Amino acid sequence: MVGIAALSCGGEAENQPVAAPKPPLAPQPLPPPPQATSAAPHPALALSGDEGMWLLNDFPAERLAKLHGFSPTKEWLDHVRLSSVRLALGCSGSIVSPEGLVMTNHHCASGCIQHLSTKEHDLAASGYLATNEKEERKCPGMEINQLVDISDVTERMTNATKGLTGRPYFDALKAATATVEKECSGGKDEVRCDVVSLYRGGRYHLYRYRRFQDVRLVFAPEAGVASFGGDPDNFNFPRYDLDLSLVRIYENDKPAKLEHYFKWSQAGAKDGDLTFVSGHPGRTSRLLTMAQLEFRRDIELPIRLIWLSELRGVLLQYADIGKEEQRTSAGLLHRVENAIKALKGRREALVDEPFMARKREDERALRTFVDATPALADVKGSWDALEHAQADARRLYRRYALLEGNGAFNDDLSEHAMTLVRAATELKKPNAERLPEFADAKLPALKAELFANTPIYPRLETVLLTHALTKLREGLTVDDPLVKKILGKRSPAEFAASAVKGTRLADPAVRKAIFEGRAAANTMADPMLALARLIDDEARAVRKEMEDKVDAVAKRNGELIAKARFALYGTSQYPDATFSLRLSYGVVKGFREGDRDVKPFTDFGGLFDRATGSDPFRLPPRWIAAEKKIDRGIPFNFATTNDIIGGNSGSPVINKEAELVGLIFDGNIHSLGGDFGYDGDKGRAVAVHSAGIIEALDKVYGAKRILAELGRR
Amino acid sequence: MVGIAALSCGGEAENQPVAAPKPPLAPQPLPPPPQATSAAPHPALALSGDEGMWLLNDFPAERLAKLHGFSPTKEWLDHVRLSSVRLALGCSGSIVSPEGLVMTNHHCASGCIQHLSTKEHDLAASGYLATNEKEERKCPGMEINQLVDISDVTERMTNATKGLTGRPYFDALKAATATVEKECSGGKDEVRCDVVSLYRGGRYHLYRYRRFQDVRLVFAPEAGVASFGGDPDNFNFPRYDLDLSLVRIYENDKPAKLEHYFKWSQAGAKDGDLTFVSGHPGRTSRLLTMAQLEFRRDIELPIRLIWLSELRGVLLQYADIGKEEQRTSAGLLHRVENAIKALKGRREALVDEPFMARKREDERALRTFVDATPALADVKGSWDALEHAQADARRLYRRYALLEGNGAFNDDLSEHAMTLVRAATELKKPNAERLPEFADAKLPALKAELFANTPIYPRLETVLLTHALTKLREGLTVDDPLVKKILGKRSPAEFAASAVKGTRLADPAVRKAIFEGRAAANTMADPMLALARLIDDEARAVRKEMEDKVDAVAKRNGELIAKARFALYGTSQYPDATFSLRLSYGVVKGFREGDRDVKPFTDFGGLFDRATGSDPFRLPPRWIAAEKKIDRGIPFNFATTNDIIGGNSGSPVINKEAELVGLIFDGNIHSLGGDFGYDGDKGRAVAVHSAGIIEALDKVYGAKRILAELGRR
Repeated sequence: MVGIAALSCGGEAENQPVAAPKPPLAPQPLPPPPQATSAAPHPALALSGDEGMWLLNDFPAERLAKLHGFSPTKEWLDHVRLSSVRLALGCSGSIVSPEGLVMTNHHCASGCIQHLSTKEHDLAASGYLATNEKEERKCPGMEINQLVDISDVTERMTNATKGLTGRPYFDALKAATATVEKECSGGKDEVRCDVVSLYRGGRYHLYRYRRFQDVRLVFAPEAGVASFGGDPDNFNFPRYDLDLSLVRIYENDKPAKLEHYFKWSQAGAKDGDLTFVSGHPGRTSRLLTMAQLEFRRDIELPIRLIWLSELRGVLLQYADIGKEEQRTSAGLLHRVENAIKALKGRREALVDEPFMARKREDERALRTFVDATPALADVKGSWDALEHAQADARRLYRRYALLEGNGAFNDDLSEHAMTLVRAATELKKPNAERLPEFADAKLPALKAELFANTPIYPRLETVLLTHALTKLREGLTVDDPLVKKILGKRSPAEFAASAVKGTRLADPAVRKAIFEGRAAANTMADPMLALARLIDDEARAVRKEMEDKVDAVAKRNGELIAKARFALYGTSQYPDATFSLRLSYGVVKGFREGDRDVKPFTDFGGLFDRATGSDPFRLPPRWIAAEKKIDRGIPFNFATTNDIIGGNSGSPVINKEAELVGLIFDGNIHSLGGDFGYDGDKGRAVAVHSAGIIEALDKVYGAKRILAELGRR
Repeated sequence: MVGIAALSCGGEAENQPVAAPKPPLAPQPLPPPPQATSAAPHPALALSGDEGMWLLNDFPAERLAKLHGFSPTKEWLDHVRLSSVRLALGCSGSIVSPEGLVMTNHHCASGCIQHLSTKEHDLAASGYLATNEKEERKCPGMEINQLVDISDVTERMTNATKGLTGRPYFDALKAATATVEKECSGGKDEVRCDVVSLYRGGRYHLYRYRRFQDVRLVFAPEAGVASFGGDPDNFNFPRYDLDLSLVRIYENDKPAKLEHYFKWSQAGAKDGDLTFVSGHPGRTSRLLTMAQLEFRRDIELPIRLIWLSELRGVLLQYADIGKEEQRTSAGLLHRVENAIKALKGRREALVDEPFMARKREDERALRTFVDATPALADVKGSWDALEHAQADARRLYRRYALLEGNGAFNDDLSEHAMTLVRAATELKKPNAERLPEFADAKLPALKAELFANTPIYPRLETVLLTHALTKLREGLTVDDPLVKKILGKRSPAEFAASAVKGTRLADPAVRKAIFEGRAAANTMADPMLALARLIDDEARAVRKEMEDKVDAVAKRNGELIAKARFALYGTSQYPDATFSLRLSYGVVKGFREGDRDVKPFTDFGGLFDRATGSDPFRLPPRWIAAEKKIDRGIPFNFATTNDIIGGNSGSPVINKEAELVGLIFDGNIHSLGGDFGYDGDKGRAVAVHSAGIIEALDKVYGAKRILAELGRR
């Protein structure tokens, strides 16, 4: 019942079942790779150009020196780590002043912007600028994490699950994760700890974060310029977006004093400059086997795309009703459209025959190596085991997606209800036995979202719940016992209208009371809770089957294959993305599109030329008024070869001096296959230029207080 | 620009480019198949059970006698052929009285029902019963064809294209088709002639039809019972639908006197009875190569499903605005939902690993046979040629689908505009050089649709055109020259609103004047015509490239592979469906679903039990009032093993005596892979039972005049 909100910035990784521990790595020295592959790593698997989302505690400094003549020191890396932040809902950001000012994307703060808006004051339409500290307004439910420490817990996780398989293995892993995380945080709300499974189970690291839950909105431009070009221009380049927002971290009701922050570059980035992106790529699947890729190609991606496309149509037409309907649904529509484009891009990679041929060849080479390496005898059966598990995944996926997967229910009320019903069961269990999302270490974020006083729009809620129930009935069929129990003789629309009207969960105080046990989620006669109770059992059942038959197999065999990969390629590989901090390097560079060259920069002149006066190419009045003051030649957006993906939204782009030169907000269309492989030829990260940000803050918004804080005044 | 209306009943086949002629079949005797496959046809390609959509002039009487102990005579087959009809828009039907009464599905007449409705009198909601001849109301644009003759024109088509390849081959084929068809019809509107390419170019037959264009509505039940269960129950069984309508063929303003018609069976069909379905399956793709199947799996089906799903969402929410919006969009929504389920079913087959493994094995066996057969040396390269062509198809498909393929524009106005703009160019050319849909033989149907006084709903037209242009901009990108030319500085919504308001094409008299050249489609300052003119050039260009690089290659190599197939399996195979008359045999039979047996019959009792009072399970008031009079045990719907597919909608189910026992309206979910292969195990055709039709006409509608005409009173 996790909403698709999580999709937009790669938060997905958080919603995946926890990883299974790897079995002990064979300690004996591995033989050299066999003749066929011994000369060098297989070219298709060798790193291509600026490929890589690198761990900050395992950065390929030598490789970088060789490629780009620069090698960061440990101090440089530590400073970058401590100046970078994660937005728990699924984005990245950077600290840009010693007073806790954080820069991220407009689309990463759009939830906050919408929550602070009313029918009369639509901050998405008007933009927002706090001219003093008092005007900085608290973002309900927003959480920011700063990574203060990384330690290796591979051995400990491994020992906890030694000799186990199947469900006991899975449960032991879950318990060890919860225990390690709780021990690390010491039960303190201001500390967040995550056990991160890397290399598909090849390593386990413990990430300790400083957790900030008082975050306030300082500046947001109008949506009309933040996402100028809207869906048609999304994932395109050339591009013209001021996809920026500034928020501030507070501690004890005062701006937080933070030692590390990125200074603003005087010059900004120029063509060919070396650039780093420090952020939180959400998920990649570059190490999957062919069977796993084919499951995504044939089942997961098409089903999700079909489902999201229908929801998109519903929302497009809903927004057509009137201004208020448009305002209240804009955020969700944006996330849905963003997800559709991203998933389409992933699918494109998997139906591209040359790409799949390379993947097949990679797999063949690795299997040949394993077959010829006696020390890897235990790895041999892994590909077949995964193929077998994918058959189960194909069988289970529809029900799983409808009841438990991303995106089934998108209304806030039923999502709150499900959280409350599950919490009532889970919180009675010892920490180590709970569903991972209810582990003690996860509760502060969960409560912040659940208790936040975010507005509920009954009409939109009704439309979304109607749609979800219609799809549930379609997917499970009219004769499914669960469908009959939920709907009885009612239609989805009748049920939804009456449930939205009858529930008390729109009131955060009611949600808090239920969560804290002063009212009983399991018996209370609230229609949303009743719905959640009906779904809960079935959702747990299909989740358990998916975990046992698919995830557990994927983890265990993923570890084995990781072992073979380490043996063949050494540890010069980077792990798949896991919504944890990574550093990528690249250069400012254009690309070739069909028969023309695309330059790496756009400028303000191009923005004004592209404006039509019609959505989504309509510039806000403030911009039209400022046109004459603006220098048309100042760079606005730019493209780099950095290896990024969803979750990197809001990441800082920095130069060798660790100065801020840009703000990642997108990739071009060719970068969307990045889930499965890096394309340094045409794939590009897309960022707002640091000089463009200053020009806009100065000439359009007159944001003197911020400019001074950034040291630019 | 052909609307998706064509999808619902398989009319697609009509919209495909004409087939290329087969080269002369090698006259020398072919060697016996090689050892590996000589014992018997490869099991996977051998016919399974009741598989087959057979030609009436090449019916496997012996096989049927062996399987079911019955063998039809030539007279029997001729009678069945002449009692069966085709609805030109994409359905099947049967003549059921000597006074021209024709039975088909409600969903095949839904266009007519909607066209005859107004805001005040919604015939879809209320149903319609003409109590005398005067009340029989003309269906605008409906055309019915009766197949009076079949002849073999293989040699003539072949000679016309001898020695040609590529575009000249394609053009010669098109010219030969137009010439043969025109010669056959003698330019008479009441004769329709179609050259039908069978076995993917293995044979060419000329079908001569009697064409009826005065068709009037006699009876239609309420949509609430015709499609009881709506989309959730669509393609399901057990099922409870009275998906019936009765229309009458008129000649010279009088009911047509027709010699051949199906008599009503006294007993109806019982479990295990032998049944025949005589109808017009629209399209199957059972003879495609793996490369062609993979194109459908990876590109065509997902893209169409994603596109249709978004449109579905738009329509669902549009219908939510109010009653009138619901009424005017219901027909299109139904067709869209039907298409989505059908395409999903097709996709399921192609992502089913065991199914694809059988297909791979079929192809391997045939290629092995070809490699070992010197007389088939010219066939060897066919599979590689097709694989190469599919790479072009993958590259071209998106643009093709947006501009020229099924379903790009679904508003009536822009579709009329495109017809008018193209007609202005095409009708100046000699018959043989025109786009096939503008050949003389096709003009009567085209004019009937274009000149029909069907209502236009401006609000719905605007929504549909907005959506089409939004998708066009999304698909081609904002920077595409065509998109810029069409939209300029306007948004799709602004353009659509002004074009719908400004066009005069809603008036059939204006359309007629333009078509007949009294006004100039190519210069007239009408916004819809202007749009069509802009799109026309680009659409023709991508169509031509698709024809040259994909279709021409598919036809030529399809013929070669057909030759190999004839050599290996003899002519005991049936050709892929082509929306021409076929006869299938089967038996009344249940099936196994998961862990339970599904009985082959439903009854009226089950209908009343399933009713909830909420759409789409709401029974019309007339039914609720009649409940006590109705015999609950009388069969309502039933399932058979007949091999059918979209286009068979409205087909009669008959027994050995050629008596009417049912009315095909659907297949179950397992039958939907039928595009690519027959599943006799679980796939079932679904029909309304003849006794159920009589019970409803009698007890619910008191339709004494019709019952008397059917000889049932």
